Amino acid sequence: MAATLKGNMLIAQSGGPTVVINQSLVGAVLEAKEHACIQGIYGALNGIKGVLKENFVNLRRETVATLEAVARTPSSALGTVRQKPTEEECNQIFSILMRYNIRYFFYIGGNDSAETTLILNENARKVNYEFRCFHIPKTIDNDLRENDHTPGYGSAARFVALAIMGDNLDNRALPGVKIDVIMGRNAGFLTAASALARQYGDDGPHLIYLPEKPFSPEKFVSDVQEVYGRLGRCLVAVSEGICDEQKTPILVKLIGKEDPDPFNNPQLSGTGALGDALAREVKEKTEIKRVRADTFGYLQRSFPGVVSEVDASEARQVARIAVRNAVRADVDGSVAIRRLPGKKYRVSYEVVPLASVARDTRKMPEEFIGSAGNDVTEAFLEYARPLVGPLPKMARLKGWAVPKIS
Amino acid sequence: MAATLKGNMLIAQSGGPTVVINQSLVGAVLEAKEHACIQGIYGALNGIKGVLKENFVNLRRETVATLEAVARTPSSALGTVRQKPTEEECNQIFSILMRYNIRYFFYIGGNDSAETTLILNENARKVNYEFRCFHIPKTIDNDLRENDHTPGYGSAARFVALAIMGDNLDNRALPGVKIDVIMGRNAGFLTAASALARQYGDDGPHLIYLPEKPFSPEKFVSDVQEVYGRLGRCLVAVSEGICDEQKTPILVKLIGKEDPDPFNNPQLSGTGALGDALAREVKEKTEIKRVRADTFGYLQRSFPGVVSEVDASEARQVARIAVRNAVRADVDGSVAIRRLPGKKYRVSYEVVPLASVARDTRKMPEEFIGSAGNDVTEAFLEYARPLVGPLPKMARLKGWAVPKIS
Repeated sequence: MAATLKGNMLIAQSGGPTVVINQSLVGAVLEAKEHACIQGIYGALNGIKGVLKENFVNLRRETVATLEAVARTPSSALGTVRQKPTEEECNQIFSILMRYNIRYFFYIGGNDSAETTLILNENARKVNYEFRCFHIPKTIDNDLRENDHTPGYGSAARFVALAIMGDNLDNRALPGVKIDVIMGRNAGFLTAASALARQYGDDGPHLIYLPEKPFSPEKFVSDVQEVYGRLGRCLVAVSEGICDEQKTPILVKLIGKEDPDPFNNPQLSGTGALGDALAREVKEKTEIKRVRADTFGYLQRSFPGVVSEVDASEARQVARIAVRNAVRADVDGSVAIRRLPGKKYRVSYEVVPLASVARDTRKMPEEFIGSAGNDVTEAFLEYARPLVGPLPKMARLKGWAVPKIS
Repeated sequence: MAATLKGNMLIAQSGGPTVVINQSLVGAVLEAKEHACIQGIYGALNGIKGVLKENFVNLRRETVATLEAVARTPSSALGTVRQKPTEEECNQIFSILMRYNIRYFFYIGGNDSAETTLILNENARKVNYEFRCFHIPKTIDNDLRENDHTPGYGSAARFVALAIMGDNLDNRALPGVKIDVIMGRNAGFLTAASALARQYGDDGPHLIYLPEKPFSPEKFVSDVQEVYGRLGRCLVAVSEGICDEQKTPILVKLIGKEDPDPFNNPQLSGTGALGDALAREVKEKTEIKRVRADTFGYLQRSFPGVVSEVDASEARQVARIAVRNAVRADVDGSVAIRRLPGKKYRVSYEVVPLASVARDTRKMPEEFIGSAGNDVTEAFLEYARPLVGPLPKMARLKGWAVPKIS
């Protein structure tokens, strides 16, 4: 019976782009072509915004060569949107889906996209419209519940690890304090990946601050002083989302009302303000002269060529499995990645209810965070290594000292 | 006679690191090993600072395997320094060089390092100390006179081109105004390389601002509005060193006295302040809502794996040629890269006087800058392409529209 649900399919991308989000798009399209019950294969431009405007493109007409080239291209090929539809819009969307005889709907995104999918599904049930919808997971934040990890994270984490490897060498050659601000508003997984950059005992990042632990500017300055006193330099990886005990973002706390911009809802990405504020703290409260900050910004989610192969392949696979499940039986849901026990990295894909990944997100588990709150644990490193893939080895001179002539 | 000058060699690295500066170090060491007149092969740690402290390492003892691995590792393996020695220090350095019987001295760096080498050479002449010294060119700014281009530039330019390719796709998927701040205090070559990211007619960067042309915040805002009105988005590449008609850095002009830091000598790198100030201009003076800024920062000169093969090979070659010339005859100087005429990219290496590259730097030639002052020319693209190497192709869906059902 399931296979007899004939109709059109619609797919869209939502939220922040990643370098592998098009693998999911292409995986879904290629899988859909293998199922006769799927007739039109449409893509909506800019997520639900495109649905509301009926801006659809015909993905069945794209050649496999184009699709495969798009799969290797970063960022959302269909365009994306940061918009949660209102109830009114959901009704509107639903009437459009019916008008276009959309029977299969796939939404690639994070927890908000899962929620949108959930609401559309509930609308379908109410009016007894036969409708199969799947959320396809994507987020560099790695904060979707039910998942061991999410497509997009491994490649973004790889970018962060490589960037920190290079910056550690820069900081080692030209010592000082360097603060690198990394994406992740609520979950510290991406910032934590900076620890994968360490290869020698004195390699940075020497301090890692995550949104999961309350951040104290005073403790931060004293941590930096301790490392600087010991190594003559200090490389800090800090999440854009760090907050104090009262959950006030540190950016708001440090800049406060003196900033010309009203920070009612502080913009964390696409600004260097947090890094600059932290650098100022160190400059004002210590004697350290060379203090610099970089904010990695959007490069983390869009840099061409910095791709984890595992991530790319899983991003494609979750989408294929979503389509396969949608056509196979009357189920809806999200596809979650589970890690199988054992030494060798292996995963399974499981269909989970939309509600189990929608809305609320997850944070880094306690066992991944060092007890001092300024580092990660070996357990995190073991978790993250297979997701990021093999990293290049940074070499050092042995550096045999020439005896001094005095 | 020249070949009879026996003695030790000292090499050091100076200024900002690059991803290929160790190719020069390793090229010089491997070449030195082929010449019997060179006895000890020493490296000074952290440039002239290490010379003054007599912090030397024995590079002859390093294995070829280690050297080759170091050559592929970003940033200065010997450490670096940003310090121009005083006359007093120059005398001190010179007496140390004599004490260690240093007869061959190589300094890898930019115009300041060339000047240091020049002064040391003059000291040697004064006291009739037989001394061969070469400056080995290195700068991501690409601003050394006499050179068609300099080692370090091609790889940094490759990073910028890739970063902008990704960010253009990000901006296309999630439209708005995006401002990317790129290194280069006086010369716009690195910012100009952003233009290599363009593959489709509407690809960014849509506006490019270089330090060679006076920057007007008013003209900038109206340029952005024009592009945004036309494309619904705007990606801007701007050099950290932009100044107004009076040569006042735009950062100082826009932030002025309100900034908590005194900007007597504004710090351009390692801060997001310029990008944020430009974003604020657009937000305050237009109706555009989504305005973001990223500052690429130190990743431009240290990101592992983003290397132009041409750049890596030339960085090694300039150093080999410096050593070869130093042992062959009683000459001192710098090795300049000249481009040979013809369709195919080929270069020659020429020994030039130290004074011809020391102190003053060069800027982008007029023919590389668009007449409106907010773009580069085809002549620049032709110049830069072979230095950066082949770039990956970013794919787009053909995007056949599905007819609307109304």
